[in-house]
This record gives sequence, structure tokens and C-alpha cells, in this order.
Amino acid sequence: MNETSPLQASFKQTKHQLAGHGKRNIHIMKKAFQDIEGNLESDFYGEGKVIEDFQEKMAQFLGKECAVFFPSGTMAQQIALRIWCDDKGLPKVAYHPLSHLEIHEEDGLKELHHIESVLLADENRVIELDDVMEMKEDVASLLLELPQREIGGQLPSFETLEKISKYCRDKGIKFHLDGARLLEVLPYYKKSAAEVCALFDSVYLSLYKGIGGIAGAILAGGQDFIEQSKIWKRRHGGDLISLYPYIITADYYFEMRSQNMQKYYEDAQELAKFFNACHGGSTVPHVPVSNMFHVHFHQAKEQVETALTKVQQQTGIGITGKLKEIDENTCYFEVSLGDQYREVPKESINNAFKLLDEYMDY
Amino acid sequence: MNETSPLQASFKQTKHQLAGHGKRNIHIMKKAFQDIEGNLESDFYGEGKVIEDFQEKMAQFLGKECAVFFPSGTMAQQIALRIWCDDKGLPKVAYHPLSHLEIHEEDGLKELHHIESVLLADENRVIELDDVMEMKEDVASLLLELPQREIGGQLPSFETLEKISKYCRDKGIKFHLDGARLLEVLPYYKKSAAEVCALFDSVYLSLYKGIGGIAGAILAGGQDFIEQSKIWKRRHGGDLISLYPYIITADYYFEMRSQNMQKYYEDAQELAKFFNACHGGSTVPHVPVSNMFHVHFHQAKEQVETALTKVQQQTGIGITGKLKEIDENTCYFEVSLGDQYREVPKESINNAFKLLDEYMDY
Repeated sequence: MNETSPLQASFKQTKHQLAGHGKRNIHIMKKAFQDIEGNLESDFYGEGKVIEDFQEKMAQFLGKECAVFFPSGTMAQQIALRIWCDDKGLPKVAYHPLSHLEIHEEDGLKELHHIESVLLADENRVIELDDVMEMKEDVASLLLELPQREIGGQLPSFETLEKISKYCRDKGIKFHLDGARLLEVLPYYKKSAAEVCALFDSVYLSLYKGIGGIAGAILAGGQDFIEQSKIWKRRHGGDLISLYPYIITADYYFEMRSQNMQKYYEDAQELAKFFNACHGGSTVPHVPVSNMFHVHFHQAKEQVETALTKVQQQTGIGITGKLKEIDENTCYFEVSLGDQYREVPKESINNAFKLLDEYMDY
Repeated sequence: MNETSPLQASFKQTKHQLAGHGKRNIHIMKKAFQDIEGNLESDFYGEGKVIEDFQEKMAQFLGKECAVFFPSGTMAQQIALRIWCDDKGLPKVAYHPLSHLEIHEEDGLKELHHIESVLLADENRVIELDDVMEMKEDVASLLLELPQREIGGQLPSFETLEKISKYCRDKGIKFHLDGARLLEVLPYYKKSAAEVCALFDSVYLSLYKGIGGIAGAILAGGQDFIEQSKIWKRRHGGDLISLYPYIITADYYFEMRSQNMQKYYEDAQELAKFFNACHGGSTVPHVPVSNMFHVHFHQAKEQVETALTKVQQQTGIGITGKLKEIDENTCYFEVSLGDQYREVPKESINNAFKLLDEYMDY
């Protein structure tokens, strides 16, 4: 992230932003704690009311026997896969080529756990039943990320999930859900979290993405699995003496926002239309299936940057602070809808996109 | 910890406690944040002013080139040793048989990093130069814990440290400081943190023990070492999107308490005398060399529990909530001095120990 790029600078100065819940500042935490009594006892190495109550609540919400709070999804997911690999005596798992584990974790799964990855499906689409059935090697676990973030948050159909789940069960492959953004896909599937999770042996849920907490993750599954995960959590250095800053904040924003996902989903569909109507712009997926999508611009990054910067400066509407180049004629950025979209006057949005369309068409 | 033991219950109801800074409750964090502006930006995956400023401050304080904030010491130290092992191409390190890595981390060093440990010295004493010189195997790193917590916080002399440091340098063994309680030993050594750390290639410092923060650790060393540690931090799942709840709190209590260590050290010496004067009681070390020591009672655990419970109930002075059995005639507990000791009226302390002496002598 180049903090000093004109695009980033213009974005930071906008009055309204189309995506997200707002700035990631200290206020997020202070607000969650303002009504918490000072004499509430800290959790203590994974024990105590603060952490146990929240874990139980999440286990129930996800329809799993047990749940454990982790400082990060990176830690939770490596551990989940390690347990399944040890169980089967086979250090091999399958996932999408753009899985978080493959591209964002400095190869922790390989370097720490010596687990090999089998990459399924083409980079630009989600894993389908055929990809799983055509897999030539046996694996201990298949990880599915719902939605597949790095391709704009695409999803397989629920029917496909059911079929993959059944196939894995029959073949003795543990089915793990990378549900970093699980809440965000429930409106599309028209299912409860528990209904989706029932298809999986183990589930990870992020506590800061859709709901806007500070950090943290939940790993859920059967009791044996969760007990083992606590041992690995300590080995990883994740069994902190106190995790309450994340837990209390997660609980606060879960209560505040977990019911808003339908709204964010609808807003994403509306906003995507604006981008798709804009000269040189298109979204992936074309019609969002969650609160997120990618915006592609089919022009050189510098030109798009100039156009976006001018729009942001002139309208005070924040579209993005970052752009990534795909090739010399394509660039993109990610959008995740949150509370802020409905605070922007509709007229200002119309106006901003009218300008953007003009600046892109020169 | 048995929450419902009469000893624990009586301890929780005391008005004053001899050890510690007070209860580990939410107030610890709220107090540290009360004057922090809500619009202060969060750190972001190890970047940003909040984390960078604190890391620089700690590097300077420890006299090292660079420092990095870790969620836990468990994570920081495994990583430090891994880097030194990879450097030398030898997955073997030496430390005390009661090192945190050996007894409190579910063998993370072995299970995650496949690093073998060579245990130096007898369990009941600290590592001396001879132990290092007589080591039959080559190792990549020697870890020294100052003070050695599990034996009451004992210390080698500073001269011994200098000699071991020189020996390690000559032999190509990286010398790592487990300085969980480094601040607490500076008064005894009459040295600055930087003077002690200069003897070591890498240093870990806890941010919640002596100073009373929530959680977190600093790892410090040369620039190359620290850059590598950041990669491993991500692999471990410790590179959280936001660590500010721990960082801001650590900074607050570092400022408040890092200068108090002489006071805690003197108080520990005074309090140890009370225990040593008590029937059947003795401290390890006999004269504390930091803010901590262990209290041994040479009687059956049940009898000591009964005596302590009665004293706590009758005087309102909290001595301990926990007792560990060594054998049928010996039990012990740990004491770490903090802010609370000077808030207890001296007369009440005298009175409590007079009673304890009576109850122990029956």
C-alpha cells in the first residue's frame, strides 16, 4: 500500500465511502467496551466466562458441538488441516489455487506443518464437483472458501456443496469450511449458518470481516477435534493469557451486524450495477452473491487512477484508495459493502458515477 | 486452578493482597485507553504508527537494532530459535530443564519446528558456565531465562553471563535471552536493559508480567533476524490485522511501572523475610534477586491450606489462592511483587504472619 499515492490521498479525504463500515481506528474498540464493567474478569489461557460463553454461543450459531476462539484465521485453519492430516496419516490437503493458505501465509502450512497442497480448479473460477471427483491423489482434507475472495467472492451452488460434501464423506476426506466470510453468503444461499456448516466437518469464521471487529477467529467442529485444536493453539503461541479485547469486540459487532447481511448483499448488487454501467468497468461476479465483488477496469492503471482521483476530489465520494494492475490494459480493486453505503446520499452516488463514466470515456 | 477450593475462595475475598498489581480485569485495558483518541488509526498487519513507534522504542530500550511486537512469548521464542537453527543448519538448542519451552508449550518447538532440546544443569539450579562448557553436543542456540522462573526466579551472576556470552560467541552459538522478566532483574544486576541485552544475540521481553499489561511480547535483535521473524510471525498466524489493544496497553504500563522494579525488588526481600521467619516456611531463593520468589512450606499441603485459609479469612490479607504439592511433606506457591504490597498496612502484614506462624506450629 502506497500511503502517499494521489489516489489514496484523495480517498482518505472523502466525506463518504461506498464500501465498508468506516475507519479501522481505536473507536471500534472503545465503542464495544463503553458499557462493559471494569470489574469483568479477564479470560485466562482459554478459560473463564468471557471466552467460554462466546465460544458456546458461536458453536450453537454454527451448529457444531464445540468452538474455540483463535487470534487469527491463519492459525485456526493451519491447525484444522493439521489435525485432519494427522488423523489420516496423510499430510496432504486440497484447496483453490488462490486460497489464503496458498498466497497470504508465507507458506506456513508447508513450513510449519509440512503439509502438501493439491490445487483444484482454474484460478478464475470456483471448485466444482468435477474438480474434486477428478482429483488423482488422495487427500486428508478438502478446504472450500465461501465465497472465494480472490476472484471477487464467487460461490458454487448449494447443491454443489451438498454433492461435494457427500463425496468427501464417502471417500473419507474431511471437508473444511474457510468461512472467513460465511455470514456474508447466507442471504444468497437462503440458509442458516448451521445449515451450511452441517455439510462440513470443521468450520472457520472470521470475527472482523463482515461484522467489523478488531481481529480474531472461531474454529468449530466436534469435541475431539476442538480439544486437539487447543493443544495446537498453545503450540502456535496463540493461547494468550488474555484474548478479551478481541472477544468482547467480536461479540458486540456480531450482535450489531450479523443480521445486516441481507442488506449488504442487496447493496452490493445495486452498487455493482453502477460500475457495470460505467465506461470500461465491469464487476466480478457480474451480479454479486455476497456483500463483495471485484471491480475491473479495462484501461491502463494510471488512467484509471487519474479518473478515480478526480472523481473523489470533486465529489467527496470515496470509491477506492487502491488499484491493482492485472496487465497493461486491466486493473481492479475489491469492494466489500458495509454500513457506510446507506449513509451516502443517492444523488451523490449518481453524480459520482456520472463523472467517473465521463472521465473513463475520453 | 480449582476455582472452588476454600483457599482460593478465601483469597478472592481478601481486602488486600501481598503480591501483584491487582485483579486481571477489563479495567486494566479501559484505564490504558481512557486518554487515547478514538480516531487514532489501527495498526495494519504489522504496519502503522502505533506498532512501529512502540517497536522502535523497545529496540532502543533494549539496545538492539530492531524489535517486533508478538502476540505471545511462546511464538516469539520458538521463532527466534528456529531462525538460529536454520542459520546454522542444525535443529538443536540448549536450555534449562524447566524452560517455558520445555514444560509450558505442549512441545511446540518440537512439534512445529522439529528442533531438539539439550537440557542443561540440574532442575533446581541455574545454568552455569561449566554446564555450557561441558555440553557434549553442538547447538545452534543457547537460551537463558533471567530469572529462572520455575525455581523461584534464581539468577547467575552477571560475570557468569559475560563468560557464557563470550564462550557462545567463540563457539558460534547464538545466545538468546528469555527475558520474560528482564525488567525485574535489572536492580539486582545494577545494569540497564541494554547492558544486559548486549550479551545476547536475540532477546524476548514480556509485556504483561512485571509491568502488568494484557498480553504480548517483544522480540529484539539485528535487522536481518527481525525481518526473518516477521515472516515466521505470519506463518504462525501471529501477524494479526490489529494488535493495538495489547500495544497501547503495554506502552501505558511500561511508562507507569518500568521504573518501579527497584521498589518491587526491595519489597520482595522484605516479604521473603516474613515467610522465612514463619514456622515451616522458607523461600527460594532465600534472599530474592528480583521481584519474585517461591514460598515452600514443609508440611502436608492440606495442613498448609487450612492454615492459609484461616489467616486470609481472619485478617483480610491475601497471601495466595494456590498451593502446589511437591511431596507429601512439602508444598509451595509463587509470589511476584507489584503495586499492591505497599498498599497493605504494615501492621496488618505483621498480624497476618503472626497468625500464620501460630497456625503452622501446632
